[in-house]
Amino acid sequence: MAKVAVVLAGSGVKDGSEIHEATLALLHLDDLGATYQCFAPDKPQFHVVDHLKGEEMAGERNVLVEAARIARGDVKPLSELKAVDYDAIVFPGGFGAAKNLCNYAFKGADCSVDPDVERAILEFDAAGKVKTFICIAPVIAANVFGKQGKKVRVTVGNSANNSGDMDNVRAMGGDPVDANVDQAVVDAANKVVSAPAYQLGPTIAPVSKGIRKAIEETLKLV
Amino acid sequence: MAKVAVVLAGSGVKDGSEIHEATLALLHLDDLGATYQCFAPDKPQFHVVDHLKGEEMAGERNVLVEAARIARGDVKPLSELKAVDYDAIVFPGGFGAAKNLCNYAFKGADCSVDPDVERAILEFDAAGKVKTFICIAPVIAANVFGKQGKKVRVTVGNSANNSGDMDNVRAMGGDPVDANVDQAVVDAANKVVSAPAYQLGPTIAPVSKGIRKAIEETLKLV
Repeated sequence: MAKVAVVLAGSGVKDGSEIHEATLALLHLDDLGATYQCFAPDKPQFHVVDHLKGEEMAGERNVLVEAARIARGDVKPLSELKAVDYDAIVFPGGFGAAKNLCNYAFKGADCSVDPDVERAILEFDAAGKVKTFICIAPVIAANVFGKQGKKVRVTVGNSANNSGDMDNVRAMGGDPVDANVDQAVVDAANKVVSAPAYQLGPTIAPVSKGIRKAIEETLKLV
Repeated sequence: MAKVAVVLAGSGVKDGSEIHEATLALLHLDDLGATYQCFAPDKPQFHVVDHLKGEEMAGERNVLVEAARIARGDVKPLSELKAVDYDAIVFPGGFGAAKNLCNYAFKGADCSVDPDVERAILEFDAAGKVKTFICIAPVIAANVFGKQGKKVRVTVGNSANNSGDMDNVRAMGGDPVDANVDQAVVDAANKVVSAPAYQLGPTIAPVSKGIRKAIEETLKLV
């Protein structure tokens, strides 16, 4: 039975993990016979967004504490994640991946990645384990592996809808490829899997199909 | 194509809608060809719970604003919901259903139901439309219909694990029946559907199967 670490970035598409994507990743892991443990950075969110108005609101929230909403309380600090304990690491999307796990939402191709996130990815990579990135999260892979001189093949959607993100992946040293919402992309050499999810959407059923493909490919590579 | 109203109670199992249950209800509605619109009461949450510690924390959150996290921004005030516009109404579970949509979490069988929730259920019932309740939400059905002298047949889990909730359903005038996590219960006469979900769990894959059954039965009754 594969053991998978899922890294959350809060709870809510505009300032945390995209809730559907995170939930569907957990669903397909469980349904396909893997076990999972959620992790998240124990630090303040970049900001809090009123998801009704789509505007920043007052207050401060902690990434780990909010991630616990998706994880039903069972989430550990990312600093405690060790690659030796798991077979794969999965990053759902949502702006939290681009605001709390790195600052791509503000810096684009010049972004930097949270040190614990970078450490975890490199540790899983050094151990030959699988790294899976959903929605906007593949920009983190492009950045981390690009700095290592590894050209990682990932999808962040397609040229018609996501050319800006694809350009940024390329600028960071990655190899962006088109995919449909119900597809996953596999870089077998680097053991990296990705899927567009809500980069394309538009509704939850096709997003679920693509995330299922990504989890299937993840477990095949384990 | 069936049009379904989904009533949320915030975002997070301990003070709002159970995130997995709400997401899975939306998934299966979309996957089975229905369209949905989310609604939630525009009022303060009963309280805010730190889902990591499982303890109440400082701060105030609005049910509608937090529900927008699950609904990706597309949620309307419950006061605007009219039965004439939809074929069915679905209530996911989580303690929010028992703290914000009614006060069952504190009052048990003596609970009262939020006036907008009660109005919506009675309006759907008067129009002969389907009412679906997941997890702990069937206590709302037992209360609202019990006051009307209607003995509604629902599940809140099984006698081995949920006898207290079953006793309360009975005390409010309902007819509680055992179900497994992957099953749904149909009261065809009253057009009421229910499923235990995380009343039993314990993991997300069987919860998803039960919610899919509940949505299938809902759409059959439409």
